[in-house]
Amino acid sequence: LGTVCIFGTGDFGRSLGMRLLQSGYGVVFGSRNSRNFSLLPRGAQVLPHAEAAHTAQVIFIAMHREHYDFLCQTAGEALAGKVLVDVSNNLRRNQYPESNAEHLHQLIPAAFVVKAFNTVSAWSLQSGGLDANRQVLICGDSCEAKQIVVDITHSLGFTALDKGSLRAARELEDYPLQLFPLWKLPITLATCLTAFFFFYLLARNVIYAAVNDRKDISFQIMVSLANKVFPIVSLIMLALCYLPGAMAGFLQLYNGTKYRRFPAWLDRWMLCRKQLGLVALALAFLHVLYTLIIPMRYYIRHRLSDWTISQIKLNKTEAFDTTMAWRTDSYFSIGIVGFCFYILLGITSLPSVSNNINWREFRFIQSKLGHLTLFLCTTHAFLYGWDKFLRPSAYKWYLLPGYMLALVVPCVVLVLKLVLVTPCVDRAVTRIRQGWE
Amino acid sequence: LGTVCIFGTGDFGRSLGMRLLQSGYGVVFGSRNSRNFSLLPRGAQVLPHAEAAHTAQVIFIAMHREHYDFLCQTAGEALAGKVLVDVSNNLRRNQYPESNAEHLHQLIPAAFVVKAFNTVSAWSLQSGGLDANRQVLICGDSCEAKQIVVDITHSLGFTALDKGSLRAARELEDYPLQLFPLWKLPITLATCLTAFFFFYLLARNVIYAAVNDRKDISFQIMVSLANKVFPIVSLIMLALCYLPGAMAGFLQLYNGTKYRRFPAWLDRWMLCRKQLGLVALALAFLHVLYTLIIPMRYYIRHRLSDWTISQIKLNKTEAFDTTMAWRTDSYFSIGIVGFCFYILLGITSLPSVSNNINWREFRFIQSKLGHLTLFLCTTHAFLYGWDKFLRPSAYKWYLLPGYMLALVVPCVVLVLKLVLVTPCVDRAVTRIRQGWE
Amino acid sequence: LGTVCIFGTGDFGRSLGMRLLQSGYGVVFGSRNSRNFSLLPRGAQVLPHAEAAHTAQVIFIAMHREHYDFLCQTAGEALAGKVLVDVSNNLRRNQYPESNAEHLHQLIPAAFVVKAFNTVSAWSLQSGGLDANRQVLICGDSCEAKQIVVDITHSLGFTALDKGSLRAARELEDYPLQLFPLWKLPITLATCLTAFFFFYLLARNVIYAAVNDRKDISFQIMVSLANKVFPIVSLIMLALCYLPGAMAGFLQLYNGTKYRRFPAWLDRWMLCRKQLGLVALALAFLHVLYTLIIPMRYYIRHRLSDWTISQIKLNKTEAFDTTMAWRTDSYFSIGIVGFCFYILLGITSLPSVSNNINWREFRFIQSKLGHLTLFLCTTHAFLYGWDKFLRPSAYKWYLLPGYMLALVVPCVVLVLKLVLVTPCVDRAVTRIRQGWE
Ligand SMILES: Cc1cc2nc3c(=O)[nH]c(=O)nc-3n(C[C@H](O)[C@H](O)[C@H](O)COP(=O)(O)OP(=O)(O)OC[C@H]3O[C@@H](n4cnc5c(N)ncnc54)[C@H](O)[C@@H]3O)c2cc1C
Ligand SMILES: Cc1cc2nc3c(=O)[nH]c(=O)nc-3n(C[C@H](O)[C@H](O)[C@H](O)COP(=O)(O)OP(=O)(O)OC[C@H]3O[C@@H](n4cnc5c(N)ncnc54)[C@H](O)[C@@H]3O)c2cc1C
Ligand SMILES: Cc1cc2nc3c(=O)[nH]c(=O)nc-3n(C[C@H](O)[C@H](O)[C@H](O)COP(=O)(O)OP(=O)(O)OC[C@H]3O[C@@H](n4cnc5c(N)ncnc54)[C@H](O)[C@@H]3O)c2cc1C
Ligand SMILES: NC(=O)c1ccc[n+]([C@@H]2O[C@H](COP(=O)([O-])OP(=O)(O)OC[C@H]3O[C@@H](n4cnc5c(N)ncnc54)[C@H](OP(=O)(O)O)[C@@H]3O)[C@@H](O)[C@H]2O)c1
Ligand SMILES: NC(=O)c1ccc[n+]([C@@H]2O[C@H](COP(=O)([O-])OP(=O)(O)OC[C@H]3O[C@@H](n4cnc5c(N)ncnc54)[C@H](OP(=O)(O)O)[C@@H]3O)[C@@H](O)[C@H]2O)c1
Ligand SMILES: NC(=O)c1ccc[n+]([C@@H]2O[C@H](COP(=O)([O-])OP(=O)(O)OC[C@H]3O[C@@H](n4cnc5c(N)ncnc54)[C@H](OP(=O)(O)O)[C@@H]3O)[C@@H](O)[C@H]2O)c1
Ligand SMILES: CCCCCCCCCCCCCCCC(=O)OC[C@H](COP(=O)(O)O)OC(=O)CCCCCCCCCCCCCCC
Ligand SMILES: CCCCCCCCCCCCCCCC(=O)OC[C@H](COP(=O)(O)O)OC(=O)CCCCCCCCCCCCCCC
Ligand SMILES: CCCCCCCCCCCCCCCC(=O)OC[C@H](COP(=O)(O)O)OC(=O)CCCCCCCCCCCCCCC
Ligand code: HEM
Ligand code: HEM
Ligand code: HEM
Repeated sequence: LGTVCIFGTGDFGRSLGMRLLQSGYGVVFGSRNSRNFSLLPRGAQVLPHAEAAHTAQVIFIAMHREHYDFLCQTAGEALAGKVLVDVSNNLRRNQYPESNAEHLHQLIPAAFVVKAFNTVSAWSLQSGGLDANRQVLICGDSCEAKQIVVDITHSLGFTALDKGSLRAARELEDYPLQLFPLWKLPITLATCLTAFFFFYLLARNVIYAAVNDRKDISFQIMVSLANKVFPIVSLIMLALCYLPGAMAGFLQLYNGTKYRRFPAWLDRWMLCRKQLGLVALALAFLHVLYTLIIPMRYYIRHRLSDWTISQIKLNKTEAFDTTMAWRTDSYFSIGIVGFCFYILLGITSLPSVSNNINWREFRFIQSKLGHLTLFLCTTHAFLYGWDKFLRPSAYKWYLLPGYMLALVVPCVVLVLKLVLVTPCVDRAVTRIRQGWE
Repeated sequence: LGTVCIFGTGDFGRSLGMRLLQSGYGVVFGSRNSRNFSLLPRGAQVLPHAEAAHTAQVIFIAMHREHYDFLCQTAGEALAGKVLVDVSNNLRRNQYPESNAEHLHQLIPAAFVVKAFNTVSAWSLQSGGLDANRQVLICGDSCEAKQIVVDITHSLGFTALDKGSLRAARELEDYPLQLFPLWKLPITLATCLTAFFFFYLLARNVIYAAVNDRKDISFQIMVSLANKVFPIVSLIMLALCYLPGAMAGFLQLYNGTKYRRFPAWLDRWMLCRKQLGLVALALAFLHVLYTLIIPMRYYIRHRLSDWTISQIKLNKTEAFDTTMAWRTDSYFSIGIVGFCFYILLGITSLPSVSNNINWREFRFIQSKLGHLTLFLCTTHAFLYGWDKFLRPSAYKWYLLPGYMLALVVPCVVLVLKLVLVTPCVDRAVTRIRQGWE
Repeated sequence: LGTVCIFGTGDFGRSLGMRLLQSGYGVVFGSRNSRNFSLLPRGAQVLPHAEAAHTAQVIFIAMHREHYDFLCQTAGEALAGKVLVDVSNNLRRNQYPESNAEHLHQLIPAAFVVKAFNTVSAWSLQSGGLDANRQVLICGDSCEAKQIVVDITHSLGFTALDKGSLRAARELEDYPLQLFPLWKLPITLATCLTAFFFFYLLARNVIYAAVNDRKDISFQIMVSLANKVFPIVSLIMLALCYLPGAMAGFLQLYNGTKYRRFPAWLDRWMLCRKQLGLVALALAFLHVLYTLIIPMRYYIRHRLSDWTISQIKLNKTEAFDTTMAWRTDSYFSIGIVGFCFYILLGITSLPSVSNNINWREFRFIQSKLGHLTLFLCTTHAFLYGWDKFLRPSAYKWYLLPGYMLALVVPCVVLVLKLVLVTPCVDRAVTRIRQGWE
C-alpha cells in the first residue's frame, strides 16, 4: 500500500501511525529529535522532517498550528508537490482569522492541502471494534489529493465524506468544538419552564401554607413539588414537539403550496423537535421515579398511620368509594401506557434503530404513536385533576392549580391536530404535500 | 468530481442538490420554469430539461412516475446514452404493473437506468452527522452505470449495496412502503393472547364476583386484571422465543442432518423470534410498572387500613409468618433479577450493540442468558402461585387460575431444553450442527 | 461483476452464494457430489472442485480446515495463481500451531491467500437491513488479491478493514472465539466485592441477630441484604471508574510530561472503565428496583400495621418530624437525580450514540457529568447514613456499617478530583496534557 509520512510524534501522530501500520502501510515519522521514541509503534521509522518528507507522497501534519512556521522553515521545499493532510484543531472558535488548513496552504502554496481526520480522536484511532460507523470528513481543493486521502481512509476502515473545497475547512475545524448545539434551545426552555413552575407552585403551596395556615411544609419541596413541576414541564414540552407540525400544516393550507419557506423561527423549532422530545422524556422519567417512591416517604407513611388512628378514634370506617377506585386506577393505568409509548419514541430515536427502519415506519411511530402518547398523557393529567378545579380551595391566592396550566398547550395541539385529520382538510393538506400542481 | 444533473426541483431534488454541492459536485437542475427557484441551493444552475441533460453524464430523475411521459416528450433524445437514476417511490404496492425504473427504461431504452436512493428520505439527505450507517440500495442492468452511481454514493458519505439487475427494482420500490413486516405476527399473537386472557380472567374474577358474591369489583379491570394479563402473555411469548430452537434441535436429531430444510412455518417462526422477544419485553415492562404502583392504589391503601382497624377491633395481632416473608421476598427478588436479564437481552438486540459483539458473544447472551431468563421468570411465577392451586377457591367455575395457564409453555420449553443439554443428546446435536459427515 | 467460486456448500457457502447472487455476481460452487443441492440458491452452478476452480479468479474456501488436505489433493494445481479467500474459524484458540490461512498458504503456495469474512456469520450474510455497520476484517500478503476481495466486500454492502499481512490471520481467527475479554475484570471485581459485602453484612445483621438476639431474620437475605450489597458495590465501582483518571493526572504532574507510559496495570484499568461503569449501572438498576418494591413487602406492611396498632395501644401519636421528612425526601430526591445521570452515561456509551457526538461532547458527559453523578450518589449515601454512625448500636461486633465502607473510595476520588480542578493544579495539568514543551 505504499509509505505514508507523519510529522509529529504526539498522541495523534502515534495513534495514526499504529493504525496505518496495522493496515499494511509503511510509516515514517518526521520529528525533531523527539524524546518519546519508546512510545512509537514498532515498525515505524523516525527521520528529521525534511528527510522524512522525501520518503512519501502523503504527509500527515500531526502538529499544532503554532508550529507550522517551524515546519515551513525546516522542510518547506521538501513539501512542494506533496499531499499535506492537516488534522489540527483549535482550542476555541475563531481563534485565528483563517482556518488552519488554509493557513498551511498559504505557508506552502506548492503543496496540496487536504483537511481530514480532525473529527477523529486519537483514542478512536487506536480502539475500534467491528462497528464501522465513524465518518471522516474531508475537504480540499485538489481532487486527486482528496482521492488519495479517501483511499487511505477506506483502508483504515472508516467511511469518508467529501465536504468540498478547502473553504469548508473552517466548518470542519469548528465541528469538534461544538457542544450540543441543537440541545441548547430545548434545555434552556426546560430550565425556564421548570424555574417558572417551581416558583409558581412554591408560592401557591408552600408559601401560602406558611402565610395563611402558619404551617411549615417546606420539606415538600424535595419530592411533592418536584413531582408536580417535572410532569407539568414534560407534558408541555411534549406538546411543543407536535405544535410546529400542526402549525406547518395550517401554514401550508394558507399558502396553498409546500414550496414556500417557513419563517425562520418555525424552521429552527422543527429542527430541534427531537431534542425537545428527549428532554421531555427525561423529565417524564423523573416524574415516574418520583411517583414510585411516594409510598416509601416518611410523610406518606406517617399520614397513612395517622389517618388509620384517627379513624379508630372516631370509631368509623370510611366506605369504599368505587368511583375513586376507578378514577385513580384509570389515571395510573393510562399514565403507564403513555409512558411506555414515550419510551418507544425514545428508543426509535436512537441512531442505530432509526437507521434500520424506513421513512414510513419512522413516521408511523414518531407522528402517529407520538400523537397517541400526547393524548394519553393529557388524559392522564385530566383524570388526575378530575373535579379539583371545582373546589374553591384550588384557587389559592387566585392562582390556578398547576395541572390546569399544564393542560393548555396539549389541548390546543390536540384540537389543531383533530382539525387537520378531518377528511376534507386532510385531503387538501395531502394534495399540497405531495407537491402536484 | 464533475457535474451532475437533477430533473425536478421538488423536496428530493433540492436536498440531493444541496448534498451534491457540499461534496464538491457541480449541479444543474432541469426544470419546467419552476416557481421555487428561491429555495434552490446556492451554486446550482437551472435550465430546461433538454439543455440540462447535455451538461452531465448522470441525471437524477427526482420526479414522480406520473411525469415520466412528459419527460420523455421534452427531453427524450437528449437522454440517450445517459445514466438515469430513478429515485421514485409509489404510494402503495402494486400500483403499477411494472416497477418505475423498468417503466423508465421502457420509455427511454437508449439510456442506462439505475434504481437508487429511493430508500433515502429528503430529510436524511439534508441532515447527517458523523454516523455513516445509511445504506443506499442500488440496482441496474449496466455495471458501468452502477459503478458511477456507487461512486457518487460514496462521495456523499453513504454505503452502497448492489442488489443486482433492474429486476430487483420492484423490491427496492416496495421497501419504503413496508410497515414493520416482521412485527405483524408477534403483535397479532400478543393481541390475541391478551384478549383471550383478558376475557378469561374477567369471567373468572370480575364476573364471577358479580354473579356469585354480588360484589362490583369491576374497578379491578384497570390495574389488577391488567397486571395479570400482561405478565402471563409476556411469559408465554418469552417461552415461544425459545420453543422453535428446541424443536429445531429435535428435528435435526430426527433427520440426522442439518442439511434438510425446516418446514416453512418453523422457518417463519424462527425469523421473528427477535420481534417476539421484544414484544414480550414491552409487556414485562408494563407488568413491572403496574406492580410498582400497587402500594399507591386507593384500593390497596384502603384495604391495608381496613385490615389494621379490624385487627384492633378483634384485639389481636397476626404473628409474623417467616415462610410468607421468605416466599414473597424470593419471588420479588427472582422477578427483579429475571427482569434485568430480560433488559440485557433487549439491549443486545439494539443494532449498534449486536454489531459490536461477535457471534459467540451474541449466542452466549441470547441463548444461554435467554434460557436463564426464562427459567428465572418461570420460577418467579411458580413462587407467586405457590400452593394457591391446592385451594378449591382457586377453581372458580372450574377455570384454572391464570398463572397455571401461564406456566404450561415455559415448562415444556425448559424440559425440552433440559433434554437437549444432557451430555449424550448434546453430543449428537453438536455433531450434526457442525456438519461433519 | 464477474464470477466467483465457492468451495463447500455448507451453511456459510450457501449464505455467501445467495448474497453474491443478489449483488449481481455469478456464482459457481465447488462440491463433492453434495446432497444438499436443493438448498442451494437459485442461479448458482455446481461443479466438482477442480472444474469449478477454472471458472473464476476468486475462490472462497467455505470448508473446515480439516478438509484442506482433501482440497489440496483434488484441486491443487487448478488453484495456482488464484485468489483463495480463507473464511474458516476454529473451535478454540491455539488449536493448531499456525493459523488456518497460513496453513492453506503452505499447502498451496502458488495461490494468493486472503483471510476475510471469518468474523461475519452465515446468519448476518443472509439477513441485513439498511444498517451498514458490519466491518469485514481482511488480511493477506498480496495487495492485488486483497484489493479484489475488498471490492467484493464493498459490493456486498460491508465495510472492509485491512489488517495487514497474513501474519495477522491468527488475530482474525481469534476474534470470533473471544467472549467479552474486556468485561472479565469488571465482572470478576463485581463478583468479589458482592461476595465480600454479602458475607460481611450477613455476619453483621443476620448472624448477629441470630446469635445475640436469638431472632431469625434470615428472610432478610432476599431483599434487605441484597438491597445493601448492590448499591454499595455499585457506588464503589462507580468511584473506581474515576479513580484512574485522577491517578493519571497526578502521575503526569509528577512526571512533568504526558510522554511517559503509564504502568501496565493503570493502562489496563483505564481501558476497562467503560465496562466497570456499565456493570455499576446494572447494579444501581438492581438497587432501584429492590428499593421500589419495599412498600409491597409482607415484612414492611406487617411492620407498618404493627406499629400503628402499638401506637393505638399506647394511645399516643408520634409527632411529625420535619427534619426526618427533609432528610429522607432529600436522599430519595438526590438518589433519583443521580440515577438519571447514571442512565445518561449508559445511553451515551451505546456505540451509535457515542459515534454521533464529538469528543468534546463525549468528555463533557462522561467526565463532567460522570463526576457529578459520583458526587450525587455519594451525597445520597451520606444523607442515608446521616447520624447512624454516632449510635453505638451501629458497631455490632465492632464491624462498621456497610454504608461507611461504601463511602471510602468515592470520597477519596472526589477529594483527588477537587485537588486537580483547583486553578493552579489545573493549569499545570492542562499545560502538560496539551503537550507543548
Ligand atoms: C421521546 C421523543 C423522541 C423523539 N425523537 C425524534 C426524532 O428522533 N426525530 C424527529 O424528527 N423527531 C423526534 N421527536 C419529535 C416528534 O415526535 C417528531 O418530530 C414527529 O415526527 C412530529 O410529528 P408531526 O406529525 O407533528 O410532524 P410532521 O411535520 O407531520 O412530519 C414528521 C416530520 O419528521 C421529519 N422526518 C421525516 N423523516 C425523518 C427521518 N427519517 N428522520 C428524522 N426525521 C424525519 C420531517 O421533518 C417531518 O417534518 C421525538 C419526540 C419525542 C417525544
Ligand atoms: C428481549 C429479547 C430480545 C431478543 N433479541 C433477539 C435478537 O436480536 N436476535 C435474535 O435472533 N433473537 C432475539 N431474541 C430471541 C432469542 O433470544 C434468540 O433467538 C435466541 O438466540 C434463541 O436461542 P436458541 O438457543 O433457542 O436458538 P438456537 O437456534 O440454538 O441458536 C440461536 C439462533 O440465533 C440466530 N443467530 C445466530 N447468530 C446471530 C446473529 N449474529 N444475529 C442474529 N441472530 C443470530 C441463529 O439463527 C440461531 O438459530 C430475543 C429475545 C428476547 C426475549
Ligand atoms: C454508566 C457508565 C458508562 C460509561 N461508559 C464509558 C464509555 O463508553 N467509554 C469510556 O471511555 N468510559 C466510560 N465510562 C467511564 C468513565 O465515565 C469515563 O472513562 C470518563 O471519561 C472518565 O473521566 P475522567 O475525567 O476520569 O477521565 P480522563 O482520563 O480525564 O479523560 C477521559 C478519558 O476518556 C477517554 N476518551 C476520550 N475520548 C473518547 C471517546 N471518543 N470514546 C471513548 N473514550 C474516550 C480517554 O482515554 C480519556 O483518558 C462509563 C462510566 C459509567 C458509570
Ligand atoms: N489528540 C487528539 O485526539 C487529536 C484529535 C484530532 C486532531 N488532533 C490534532 O492533531 C495535532 C497533534 O495533536 P497531538 O494531541 O498529537 O499533540 P501533541 O501530543 O502535543 O503532539 C504535537 C507534536 O508536535 C510536535 N511539536 C511539538 N512542539 C513543537 C515545536 N515547538 N516545534 C515543532 N514541532 C513541535 C511534537 O513532535 P516531535 O517531538 O516529534 O517533533 C509533538 O509530538 C493537533 O493539531 C491536534 O489539534 C488531535
Ligand atoms: N421526498 C422524499 O423524501 C423522497 C424520498 C425518496 C424518494 N422520493 C422520490 O423523489 C421524487 C420526487 O419527490 P419530491 O418529494 O421531490 O416531489 P415533489 O416535491 O412533488 O417534486 C416533484 C418535482 O417534479 C416536477 N414536476 C411536478 N409536476 C410535474 C409535471 N406535471 N410535469 C413535469 N414535472 C413535474 C417538479 O419540478 P419542476 O417544477 O422543477 O419542473 C417538482 O418539483 C418522487 O418520485 C419521490 O417518490 C422522494
Ligand atoms: N457458519 C458460520 O456462521 C460461519 C461463520 C464464519 C466462518 N465460517 C467458516 O466457514 C467454513 C464452513 O462453515 P459451514 O458452517 O458452512 O460448515 P458446514 O456447514 O459444515 O460446511 C462445510 C462444507 O465443507 C464441505 N466438506 C465437508 N466435509 C468434507 C470432507 N470430508 N471433505 C471435503 N469437503 C468437505 C462440504 O461441502 P460439499 O458437501 O459441497 O463438498 C460442507 O458443506 C468453516 O471453516 C467455518 O469455520 C462459518
Ligand atoms: C437526565 C437524563 C435522564 C435520563 C432518563 C431517560 C432517558 C432520557 C433520554 C435522554 C437521552 C439524551 C441522550 C443525549 C446524548 C446525545 O446528545 O446524543 C446525541 C445524538 C445525536 O443527536 P443530534 O442529532 O442532536 O446531534 O442523539 C442521540 O443519539 C439521541 C439518543 C436518544 C437516546 C434515547 C434513548 C432512550 C432509551 C430508553 C431509555 C429508557 C430509560 C427509561 C427506562 C425506564
Ligand atoms: C409499548 C412499548 C413499551 C416500551 C418498553 C420497553 C422496551 C420495549 C422494547 C420494544 C422496542 C421496540 C422497538 C421497535 C423499533 C423497531 O421496529 O426497530 C426496528 C429495528 C430493526 O428491526 P428488524 O430487524 O425487525 O427490521 O429493530 C430494532 O432495532 C430493535 C431495537 C430493540 C430495542 C430494544 C431496546 C431495549 C432497551 C432497554 C430499554 C429499557 C427500557 C426499560 C427500562 C426499565
Ligand atoms: C444484568 C443486567 C441489568 C440490566 C440493567 C440496565 C442497564 C445495564 C447496562 C449493561 C449493559 C451491558 C450491555 C452488554 C453488551 C455488550 O457487551 O456490548 C458490547 C459492546 C461493545 O463493547 P466493547 O467495546 O467492550 O467490546 O458494548 C456496548 O455496546 C455497550 C452498550 C451499553 C449499553 C448501555 C445501555 C444503557 C441504556 C439505558 C438502559 C436503561 C435501563 C434502565 C432504565 C430504567
Ligand atoms: C408510569 C407512569 C405514570 C404514573 C404511575 C404516574 C402517576 C402520577 C401520579 C401519582 C400523579 C399525582 C402526583 C401528585 O400527587 O402530585 C401524577 C400527576 C401527573 N402526571 Fe403522571 N404518571 C405517569 C406518567 C406520566 C407521564 C408520561 C406524563 C406526561 C408528561 C404525566 C403527567 C402528569 C401530570 C401533568 C401530572 C399532574 C401534576 C400536578 O399538577 O400535580 N404522567 N402522575
Ligand atoms: C421487577 C421485576 C418483577 C416484580 C417486582 C414482579 C412482581 C410481581 C408481583 C407482585 C406479582 C403478583 C401480581 C398480583 O398480585 O396480581 C407478579 C406476578 C407475576 N409475574 Fe412478576 N414481577 C417482576 C418481573 C416479572 C417478569 C420479568 C415476568 C416474566 C414475564 C413476570 C411474570 C409474572 C407472572 C406470570 C405473574 C403471575 C400473574 C398472575 O397470574 O397473577 N414477572 N409479579
Ligand atoms: C431512584 C434512585 C434511588 C432511590 C429511590 C434510592 C433509595 C435508597 C434507599 C431507600 C436506601 C435505603 C435502603 C435500605 O433501607 O436499606 C438507599 C441506600 C443506598 N443507596 Fe440508594 N437510591 C437510589 C439511587 C442510588 C444510586 C444511583 C446509588 C449509587 C450507586 C445509590 C447508592 C446507595 C447506597 C450506597 C445506599 C446505602 C446502602 C446501605 O448501606 O444500606 N442509590 N437508597
